Amino acid sequence: MLRITDLSIEKINSLLDSADEFANGKIQRATQDVFVANLFFEDSTRTKTSFDIAQRKLGLQVVPFDITTSSLNKGESLYDTVKTLKSLGIDLAVVRHPKDKFYEELKSIGLPVINGGDGTGNHPSQNLLDLMTIRQEFGHFKGLKIGIVGDVKHSRVANSNAVALRKMGAKVYFSGPEKWFDEGTIINGTYLSIDDLVKEVDVLMLLRIQHERHGEKMKISLESYHRKFGLTVDREKMMKEKAIIMHPAPINRGVEIANSLVECGRSRIFKQMQNGVFARMAILKDALEAEGFQFG
Amino acid sequence: MLRITDLSIEKINSLLDSADEFANGKIQRATQDVFVANLFFEDSTRTKTSFDIAQRKLGLQVVPFDITTSSLNKGESLYDTVKTLKSLGIDLAVVRHPKDKFYEELKSIGLPVINGGDGTGNHPSQNLLDLMTIRQEFGHFKGLKIGIVGDVKHSRVANSNAVALRKMGAKVYFSGPEKWFDEGTIINGTYLSIDDLVKEVDVLMLLRIQHERHGEKMKISLESYHRKFGLTVDREKMMKEKAIIMHPAPINRGVEIANSLVECGRSRIFKQMQNGVFARMAILKDALEAEGFQFG
Amino acid sequence: MLRITDLSIEKINSLLDSADEFANGKIQRATQDVFVANLFFEDSTRTKTSFDIAQRKLGLQVVPFDITTSSLNKGESLYDTVKTLKSLGIDLAVVRHPKDKFYEELKSIGLPVINGGDGTGNHPSQNLLDLMTIRQEFGHFKGLKIGIVGDVKHSRVANSNAVALRKMGAKVYFSGPEKWFDEGTIINGTYLSIDDLVKEVDVLMLLRIQHERHGEKMKISLESYHRKFGLTVDREKMMKEKAIIMHPAPINRGVEIANSLVECGRSRIFKQMQNGVFARMAILKDALEAEGFQFG
Repeated sequence: MLRITDLSIEKINSLLDSADEFANGKIQRATQDVFVANLFFEDSTRTKTSFDIAQRKLGLQVVPFDITTSSLNKGESLYDTVKTLKSLGIDLAVVRHPKDKFYEELKSIGLPVINGGDGTGNHPSQNLLDLMTIRQEFGHFKGLKIGIVGDVKHSRVANSNAVALRKMGAKVYFSGPEKWFDEGTIINGTYLSIDDLVKEVDVLMLLRIQHERHGEKMKISLESYHRKFGLTVDREKMMKEKAIIMHPAPINRGVEIANSLVECGRSRIFKQMQNGVFARMAILKDALEAEGFQFG
Repeated sequence: MLRITDLSIEKINSLLDSADEFANGKIQRATQDVFVANLFFEDSTRTKTSFDIAQRKLGLQVVPFDITTSSLNKGESLYDTVKTLKSLGIDLAVVRHPKDKFYEELKSIGLPVINGGDGTGNHPSQNLLDLMTIRQEFGHFKGLKIGIVGDVKHSRVANSNAVALRKMGAKVYFSGPEKWFDEGTIINGTYLSIDDLVKEVDVLMLLRIQHERHGEKMKISLESYHRKFGLTVDREKMMKEKAIIMHPAPINRGVEIANSLVECGRSRIFKQMQNGVFARMAILKDALEAEGFQFG
Repeated sequence: MLRITDLSIEKINSLLDSADEFANGKIQRATQDVFVANLFFEDSTRTKTSFDIAQRKLGLQVVPFDITTSSLNKGESLYDTVKTLKSLGIDLAVVRHPKDKFYEELKSIGLPVINGGDGTGNHPSQNLLDLMTIRQEFGHFKGLKIGIVGDVKHSRVANSNAVALRKMGAKVYFSGPEKWFDEGTIINGTYLSIDDLVKEVDVLMLLRIQHERHGEKMKISLESYHRKFGLTVDREKMMKEKAIIMHPAPINRGVEIANSLVECGRSRIFKQMQNGVFARMAILKDALEAEGFQFG
């Protein structure tokens, strides 16, 4: 599981079905010992913890791995570290790494690797939980209008979500500061001003401003960002009756979204987190079954 | 479980009975999956590890959470972090935080939170293990004389222990550097000089000098502290025959207490640690049963 | 388990037999709750993770202990930390520490401690997995020629491996920069030039250059080390037909060994890691059985 954009419509639907089953209380556990490790080279609360909980719910053995006290400090490469874990008996690794496509160099090792986020590349388990949350709400993707707003350039979900959503039949719109749209970034959708976009869409996906990826000092103040591109209290009132708000979190409250809207009636932000555990259970089970492991 | 001082005498006795049962070998495990997380924003060996062991003995699933590699580094608030954990399926959190009453802002989330120590406020699981250790020794609290000595101002157990012990019927005395006693801190007991106090009490509770909370450079040398306010070898000889020594640890050996006395016959310091696991089992079981979880 | 050199031939053979049984798929689990903790005061991937996996395979409860967020930061000593863990109910600790013979001061505590590496002293679980890998290959030690090459002075396996291998009947040769051989270090073997040594030996044990232990700036460049003392592509061709290559890892690729040889046909480097889990299972089971714990 490296990129959502590699998956067929059938595969995506089958993973979403599996995730929904877990959300509805289905219990499945590995019928033998399975050892997994989570290697996070970037900070994470949601992704790491929800993979961890998903693994425990599936009855897997989670072997702790702390990159800050590992032999990576002695100069050991990612390749040698992952090959070592395989030698030690780890059956699957979840890896988040700041390098785009870090997984390419790991392929020859033969250990199943789930991409927990690569650089500004992909974040397939986030994609899947986003799709899951939309499908739960509307029952389908066909003809839905999805708005993706914000720091598209530094986001590893914006573009992959756009590609996946179009594949599933949705229509995609973008908004946000124009300098954050490289040539080609909006190839998969239409750019609208934020005021036009909020009136149009069924799903408003807000992106986090990734301070930690902006090398240069941001030229725009956070207050000004909120006023010009954020979901203000006034803009929320312009949204369609059944439209929902999504955000991958962590949220910069008062920047991408007004503080008071984070837990409002249309917000699915904490629902997304809840779904994240079930989406990851589906991904893990699928990857392990492909290796011959069984669940019962 | 946020403050020992909120609990009735009956509730304290019932928790102590439950802790004693665990100490006597009673085995109880959750009858379903229960996920817990321990969020420690301050260093800890005893409290964190003993909560962890208590949780495992109760058959709970302990989901690792390392604040240093979480999205707290991306500016996520404590509120959003705890709300996230609840969304991910965490059933109970133990939190230690440097902010007094950090738990107030978490109440609306609806996740059971056990206070593992808040600022210079409270530390109820330490209170309970202290009470447990005293009751094991004397069988009751009525009329017992308890001396609390040292850095009362920066201690989160001194004042809450004093209140709880008086409620249970004991008499409380304080000693230590006078400048470490704010107005009001000795409202719950009587100040004595250390030489008078050691002769008087049945229980001598020494407090750790919390170097890390003394913003200003301490104006007294450690040797001088030991001589003026510590339990020296000579002062120990003045204690009553059956009197015991307690300390929440970590100990500054040779400061609050002479090195050779740490493991002497009257010392219950390591017994306190042992009891800490059982006291925390009682607290966890009580909190989870209040949420409808069952143990068998 | 503190030093391999303390063990009799019979004991070593019995541990190797037990490790081989685990390698061949034998499953054994503790018949009651056993709590263990791994205290690593130096970075580690292989040793820490393989102890952790070995513990889980034996059905032990691994209680996380992170030295960086413990009360060691408040000045608590190693002695008090380990005594605390025993009080909390930990049944066995694995400890790696930069101080030679750190375990001496812990003996009075009465907690079984397995040495996960002490300073430049010993590393008995690495010794055992090295012996296991050699015995698997040749079926015996008698008359085998073993070459140990490199940073003998800073290695905690070189000298103890030499002593153990001679005890088992093998002949030991050393090579590497002469200034890295203190008086006495080659007492247990014969010094040869690297070009002579590679032709002679059945087992070539390369040692890692421990940059982190070289206080002074190394006076030799890494390229020059490789050319003068490393296993180059050319030197590998001079090795005997059935000779094998070993390295405790992490590997400095292109320094101790040419990059292309790390995974060559004679390399047992990743096999060593695999064996490490089984060797540690044997060590843990042996130590716990000595305490009266049972496995079934």
